[in-house]
Order: sequence, then structure tokens, then C-alpha cells
Amino acid sequence: MKVIIIGGVAGGMSAATRLRRLDETAEIVVLEKGPFVSFANCGLPYYVSGEISAKEDLLVQTPASLQARFNLDVRPFHEATAIDSAKKEVTIQNQNEVYREKYDFLVLSPGAKAFIPPILGLAEAKNVFTLRNVPDLDKIMQALTSEVKYATVIGAGFIGLEMAENLQKAGLTVTIIEKAPHVLPPLDEEMACFVQNELVKNGINVITGQSAAAFQQAGQEIILDDGSSLKSDITILSVGVQPETQLAKDAGIQLGLKGGIVVDENYQTNLPGIFAVGDAVVTKQRITNEEALISLASPANRQGRQVADVIFGLPRKNQGSIGTAIVRVFNLSAAVTGLSERAVQQAGLDYAIVHVSGKDHAAYYPGATELTLKLIFNPKTGVIYGAQGVGQKGVDKRIDILATVIKGGQTIFDLPELEFTYAPPFGSAKDPVNMLGYSAINIAEGLSQNIQWYNLADEMQKGKLLLDVRSKSELTNNGRFSQALHLPLDTLRDNLNQLDKTKSYIVTCHSGLRSYLAERILKQNGFDVVNLDGAFALYKMVNPKEIDYE
Amino acid sequence: MKVIIIGGVAGGMSAATRLRRLDETAEIVVLEKGPFVSFANCGLPYYVSGEISAKEDLLVQTPASLQARFNLDVRPFHEATAIDSAKKEVTIQNQNEVYREKYDFLVLSPGAKAFIPPILGLAEAKNVFTLRNVPDLDKIMQALTSEVKYATVIGAGFIGLEMAENLQKAGLTVTIIEKAPHVLPPLDEEMACFVQNELVKNGINVITGQSAAAFQQAGQEIILDDGSSLKSDITILSVGVQPETQLAKDAGIQLGLKGGIVVDENYQTNLPGIFAVGDAVVTKQRITNEEALISLASPANRQGRQVADVIFGLPRKNQGSIGTAIVRVFNLSAAVTGLSERAVQQAGLDYAIVHVSGKDHAAYYPGATELTLKLIFNPKTGVIYGAQGVGQKGVDKRIDILATVIKGGQTIFDLPELEFTYAPPFGSAKDPVNMLGYSAINIAEGLSQNIQWYNLADEMQKGKLLLDVRSKSELTNNGRFSQALHLPLDTLRDNLNQLDKTKSYIVTCHSGLRSYLAERILKQNGFDVVNLDGAFALYKMVNPKEIDYE
Repeated sequence: MKVIIIGGVAGGMSAATRLRRLDETAEIVVLEKGPFVSFANCGLPYYVSGEISAKEDLLVQTPASLQARFNLDVRPFHEATAIDSAKKEVTIQNQNEVYREKYDFLVLSPGAKAFIPPILGLAEAKNVFTLRNVPDLDKIMQALTSEVKYATVIGAGFIGLEMAENLQKAGLTVTIIEKAPHVLPPLDEEMACFVQNELVKNGINVITGQSAAAFQQAGQEIILDDGSSLKSDITILSVGVQPETQLAKDAGIQLGLKGGIVVDENYQTNLPGIFAVGDAVVTKQRITNEEALISLASPANRQGRQVADVIFGLPRKNQGSIGTAIVRVFNLSAAVTGLSERAVQQAGLDYAIVHVSGKDHAAYYPGATELTLKLIFNPKTGVIYGAQGVGQKGVDKRIDILATVIKGGQTIFDLPELEFTYAPPFGSAKDPVNMLGYSAINIAEGLSQNIQWYNLADEMQKGKLLLDVRSKSELTNNGRFSQALHLPLDTLRDNLNQLDKTKSYIVTCHSGLRSYLAERILKQNGFDVVNLDGAFALYKMVNPKEIDYE
Repeated sequence: MKVIIIGGVAGGMSAATRLRRLDETAEIVVLEKGPFVSFANCGLPYYVSGEISAKEDLLVQTPASLQARFNLDVRPFHEATAIDSAKKEVTIQNQNEVYREKYDFLVLSPGAKAFIPPILGLAEAKNVFTLRNVPDLDKIMQALTSEVKYATVIGAGFIGLEMAENLQKAGLTVTIIEKAPHVLPPLDEEMACFVQNELVKNGINVITGQSAAAFQQAGQEIILDDGSSLKSDITILSVGVQPETQLAKDAGIQLGLKGGIVVDENYQTNLPGIFAVGDAVVTKQRITNEEALISLASPANRQGRQVADVIFGLPRKNQGSIGTAIVRVFNLSAAVTGLSERAVQQAGLDYAIVHVSGKDHAAYYPGATELTLKLIFNPKTGVIYGAQGVGQKGVDKRIDILATVIKGGQTIFDLPELEFTYAPPFGSAKDPVNMLGYSAINIAEGLSQNIQWYNLADEMQKGKLLLDVRSKSELTNNGRFSQALHLPLDTLRDNLNQLDKTKSYIVTCHSGLRSYLAERILKQNGFDVVNLDGAFALYKMVNPKEIDYE
């Protein structure tokens, strides 16, 4: 059996090594058009600041080490330029030669390439780079001479944010431009606001709701949609990726969504003997069962291993992906799993939201920091559609748990039952994930009704009264809503006569816990009342200018 | 409706506050025999070293704050001394008075008390303490005068280890005595060995396989089982807990396993109107469905909340617990969820084991540390019985994920499918939890067979040959098995003729990954071979004296 694998990074190399473990006799050839295989592409941004200081650390394997350990024939600088599926042959271009090679099975793992938007003047700009591989990194490092002061990152997704931080840590003055209304578009606005604040706090200039309209002066000047301009000595284009599927298309392989390769659940393309995995294939968003392109290392690695199993004859199926991702931005981390609120809306699903703030470990143990979690779920069935988290510590843990919950088909009703490791340095007896469950169940069972930060103005417009139950000192120290009534929670029962039962109320506090207690008191006393989910803290995060200070 | 709750900590206070949120009109009385309610009992050991420096931090709520916020009638120093279930009355002893009070519903949350073993001379020992509550802590702090130099902790469970560390950090010379063959008996021996090493490395004197036979000289001298003695200025007895159920027993409430209160799945005792929750009740070990006493804060809190729901009429059921716990021991953490290997053996279940070592985050990103995970599972069905972890960082996250997997009924076949947050500071594209799944599936599908560290001597006795595939420099630097053959993995394919096909082989490397690769090469070349799970590193951890150095 001879297997040719096109692409020597995550999916391709996982396929090659697993296949070898299954079959000592197979002839396995890995074609990689670039100079390196099996490099740590997720680590590239950290080399820019020197946080990862040795480039060898990014090069996990070499052709020689893969030959010695796995008896793989790994060929860097070898690009597959054509596939003859009838003859089962690949045409290969090396630096100086073109040759054809036969296969029994062919695995395509070409990955995705940077999407290059058609920006005016881009062809003339000499200082615009993308970052997908080690040669890209080399070009950026060469361009970062001591004269380079101003850097611009176009696109505030995961890699864009990592590049912005690392360029800033490398000593540059950094601007980040995002076309969407907020940074980190995979997250919803109020969660992304935490990240935006952290960027600004650390000296990054953040421009949202605008794209780069043109490059001028060979790229030294960037013109924005609104006509304003900014000076840029170096610019990183990071506005997304697209599947690298020209070779597949030319070979007659069926392409689908956004040019991705169509495969069945065994990674089989429409052509016999040809399989495909990784960023280039159309997979399923497991929650909606809709087609999706998911460019993440973890699914690519899994798919590579699975296609080796399939070729060897072991039963494996692509079960789709939910999409889980995280980014560190200075002292903050921000993570997401499953669908965002925006995606749930677009899918037309019935949903409810809860936000919970808590500490990463027991509040009474030193060093506890705040984290904020968002859960998006079906209020009738309890099915969880997605979750997001931001905070200094422990966000990865909570989103990993929630990703596990979603993959296992557990619902909001299972979250309180989860039993986590608890000792004061690690967590709390009631973990924020348990609290998400309690809050969501209260919504599902009708004990609580909430509105979101973006509903507040409308609801007040309709005549609802906003009641703030924080203490007096919190209003003084943290600011207040301009039009809120004020009754501290602990005095509420004794002052119900100050409220008007013919009116409808919205209750708020700092994070939404005390206002829930107020909601319960008021409801049982016959008031029409809803809770402002996430309360003052979340509202202030999104609308800092609407907060009054005494 | 009038509800009396006996016990004002985790379960009792969760019941009281949830009941108030459900019902503004209920009369809710909380009786607490001690001076404090709702204190952070898991934080008590950290006050000994000053790591938690303000005692107020341990006192989460006061009767006044609970009155103001929840309209609760909280009575510290009030002990329920009798229950008249026919009249629905409790007899209550305050410091100066005895009175009776009626209830409609009674919730027992008395907790567990320290188990006091019948040690000779204990009655005369003036320096022996237990630690369950704030008054216990006060006594210990008073006893820790500047003359006190030598401390002994009897019992190396979770709290015993926390006390040993904190007494050492307070400047004392600490000995810990454990009757079991290893510290931290909820974990299996090889995992507990990591903890034992960490204790010794930090200057704790560890004595295992022995108990305190007698106290002499008013407790200043402890005589061990083997007749040896040690000086002890202060001694902490931490050999487990037992349910505090004398009151329940006297009232005619049915007791079961180890004196725990028998409740149905709605927390109802055999007497009408009387419920019980927390450490004092017999619950179900969810994995085996066997009766169990589980003394952990997380289930107690959940049960308290659920019993309030039941009393209010919401549908809730006790679903049992799997038992998840963690302890920090100096720079190490050690955690467990579900059943240990020992418990699985005792339950007579068919099981297999895999150990996986990995980094807490991407190896190429600075600061990565090693963690070791153990998975115990059914090799036919893939059902997961339990997991354990040790390491400097990230152990809590992995065991929390695995606890979620177990609770959700996911199997080893689901572990590779889990999609975690991956960026270099947080994890790896293939997380150690994914790797546990891959390893376990390889066992389940027959691609790999392993033996455990405790099988090695027997298997070699039977004539199997041990083949070490590490590099030469590893043998020189880290030590080696005295009777192993040596062929570095990358030279194995070229040296198969040095091996004897009439023999059976056991392969080993440092952690078990390379030896698995060797196992696959040898198997496919017709050799009879098994992998030493956890390999040299795990074996050396348990049997450091059996390792040879050049």
C-alpha cells in the first residue's frame, strides 16, 4: 500500500504517523510545498515579541527525525501541482524538477491560506504581511528593523489580537482595525468589550467598525473607510482564511461551502482513493448540523488520525466540530465554545441567556480574580448552544468543561450536578459553571425572567422603572445609572411601600445576583419585575459613557 | 409554613437561603450549636500558616447579614437536643435555657465530626487536636506558642496533608503518619508517590504503614506500631470523619451505612416532615450505584438547595455523587474523580488502566510543566470508572473535565472528540485528556496491550524480557532498569535481528509513548510484546531504589 499525503502540518502529519503505527509495511510519502513540516503554527505570533525565543522550539519535527522514528518519506519544498485520479498519480514540482508519482490512497491536507481582501494599493504596499507559516514569520522578522515604529493589524480575530499584543511587546506602537462593530467577532459584543478594554489599557489603539480602504505611499499610509488615515511602518493582514483547494478543484474534486472540499463522514472525496482532512474540508457544525469550515488545530489533528484509521480499515467517522477557541490578550483570556448569540439568532433558534460572574477560586483564598461567563441555551429543552468566558484566570477550564458538556449532550439541568475538584486554591464549592446551571434553570422554570443589556433602553422607553439594589457606597464609588431608583437590597423588604404595583420594574445590582434576590422578593409581593442580566457591571462594560458619577 | 434547619454550614445554609428565595412567607429558623454559621471550613488549614491572614475572611456570613438579606432566624449556640416527631417539636438548648419549638418541616444538616480512634493515652494528651470548625482552629492557634517546634499529623488524607504543609510553613518541623501503605489513600499508590516525594522534598517527615499506638508524657511522645517513638509538641488527628447522627438516632430516624442517615431520593427520612442532607446522609456512589458516605462541600451545597426545592414542591432528586477532590501539596496538586483502581478491584469490575504524561500547555511555550494522568475504564464498553492526576499546573482542569465526562456517561471513545480551548499558553492541540482517550481506545481495540508497574517483576520472573527504547543519554542521566535490554527506538527497525522471536518482550521508555511505538513495530514484525504503562518514569517514582545508575 502506498499513501501520498499532501500537506505536512497538523492533519497531514497526524495521518502519516498514525498510519505508520497501524501499518509498518505501507509506503508513506508526505509532500510539503514549504520548507518545514509539523511546525507549531499556533506559536508563531509569540516569536515576534521574543516570548518564544528559539525558533527551533517551533519546529517540532524534521524530515530526518520523522524518517528515523516513523519511516516516513517526508519531502519539503515538494508541491503537488496536479492529480490524475484515473491513473492514481500526483504531479510533483520540486525546486528543479517535475515528476509524477503513483499512489493507492491520497490524503489531501492542504490547510487554509490567508484571505487577501482586494484593498486599493495593496500590490504596491511593500510592508504588508500575513502570518500562516515559518517563511511568513521570517519575512515579518526581517521587516522589523529598528526604524519600524508604527504597526497596524487589520483584523481583530484570534491571530490578529495575538499579533497586536506581541508587536506591542516588541516595542512598537500598535493600531488594530476591525471591520465588525467590536474586536474578536467570534464572541458577542458585551464579552468582546472586556478584551477591547484590556487592549486599550495596554496601549493598543483600537478602531472598530472600519476597514482599510486603501494603502498609500507604498503601504506607509492606510486610508480607512471614513477617509481618515494612519501611518503604518508594518501592517499585518489577518482578516480570516480560506481553504487552499485549487489543486483539488483542478483534479475534479467536488468543492462546497466557501470552496471547501466536500467529504463524506469517512473523509472520502467524490474521487475514489482520495481523502481530505483539516482546514480545507467542509465539516459539520455539530450543534446545528449545518455545514461549516472550522480552521482549528484540534479538529485537524483528530481528522488526520481518523483518516489513517479509515484507510487502514478501522471504523471511524467524522462527528463534526463544535468549535472551541481561546486567546490570551495581555492579562486577560477570552474563550468561546459552540455558537455565539449572534449565530443562534441567525439559525433562528429559541434561546435564552444568562451571565454569571464569579471568582476563579475561593474568594477567601489569596489571589482570586473575577471571571464572567455567558451561557446560551434553549429555555424549553435546556439544550446548551454555546458559552463564552473572559477573565484573568480559569477561563480555559470553564470553557473546556462547557465544551465537554455540549459534546456529551448534557443540558442546563446537568450543570448543578457536575462535581469539580474543590480546594481553596483551585475553585469554589459552587463553581461558576454550577452557578450558570442554577441561573439557567431558574429561567427555564420561570422563577426568574431577565433582559439583556441591549434591551434596557427599549424597556425603559416602554415605561419600565429601573431599580438599583446596590449599596449607597457602590453608587458613589462605581457610578450609577442616570435614571434608576435606589433601594439597597437589605432594606428592600421594609420599603416595598415606596414602590408602585401599577408599574413594571427592572432590577439591577453590580453583577446580577443581588438583583435576582430582589426580583424574587418583589415577584412574591405581587410586583411585575425582571432582572437585568449581568447588571450594572456588564452594562458599564458595554456603555461606559452612559454611566453617571457623583 | 415553618421550617427548622439543624446545622448552619454548607447544606443547612444552602437550604435556608434557597427556601427564602422560593418562599418569602416561610418562617425559617437555623439552629447552629457552634458560634458561627456559613464559615469556610475548607479554608481553615490555610489560616495556620497565615496564607489566609484574616479570620474574618473565613466567616462568609453572620446571623445579622443573613437576617437582613434573607430574613432568616439564625441562632448560633443553639443545639437541638431532641426531636419529637409525633408533636413536630425540637428541643433546643441555648447557653442558659432549654425550650421547645414547633416545625412543619425539619431539615437535618448536622455534618460529620472528626473520627477519634481509641489510642492509648489519648485522654491524658493535652496537645492533640482535630480541625473541623473555627473553635477547633482557635484551640490550635492558641497551642502554637513559640516553644512549639515539633508537629505531628496523624492521617495523610486531604486535610491531613493541608495541615502538614501549613504547619511546616508556620515554621514547625512536621511528621505525618499514615496507616495505609502510602499517603493520600483516595489515590492509588503510584499517583500518591508523587505527593509523597513532594512532601519529603519540602522537609516533611513521612511515615507510612504505621499508626500511632499510644501517646505518652501527656502527648509529648507518640509511640508507633513498631515500637519506635517520636517527640510531638502538637498533634493533629486527621484520620477521617463520621456522620454526626446521635440526635437523629435518638429521634427514631433510620440510620444505615456507618451510622449515616437513610434518606430517599427526595432527602426524606423515614419520619414524616423530616429531611436530611450533607455529610450525615447515606448517598449513592453514582458509578457503582452502591451506598456511600461522601463528605465533600460541593454535594452538601447541592443537596441543601435541592431539599429546599423538594419542600417547596419543585421536582428534584438526589442523583448521587461520583466524588471529586483535589489537594495542593507545596508546588504539586493531586486530584481524583470517581473510583480508584483499588475501589474498582474491590467492586469486582473488569477494568484496564492507562497513564499519560503531558504538558499543562504547549511544550514550546515558556513555563510548561509536566502532569501525569491515570484513567481507569472498562476495556469492553469503554465506560470510565475513575481518573487521577498529579502535576504542578492544570491538574484541576483535566480532572474537572473527566468528572464531567463521567457524569455525562461519555466513554473513552468520546475523549478524542472533546474540543478544548487551545492557544499555546493554555493547552495543546492534543490535550492530555484527548491522549488518554487515544491510549485507552488502543487498549480497547487491541492495538496495544499494557502491563502496570506492579506487574513488572512477576512478568520478568516468568521469562519476559524488558526492552528499553530510550536514548543512551537518558539511561546515563536518569538511571536504568538493572535487567533491561537496550535499543533506542529510532534504531529499532534496523536491529530487529538482535531480538529473539521465541521470547516475549516488555517494552519501556521514559513515559510510555515511545515504547508504544516500539510495541507497534515489534507486533507487526511478529513479536509477542506488551508495553509497560507509564514506563520508566512511573516505575522509578514508586521504586526509586530499584533503579541503577552508571
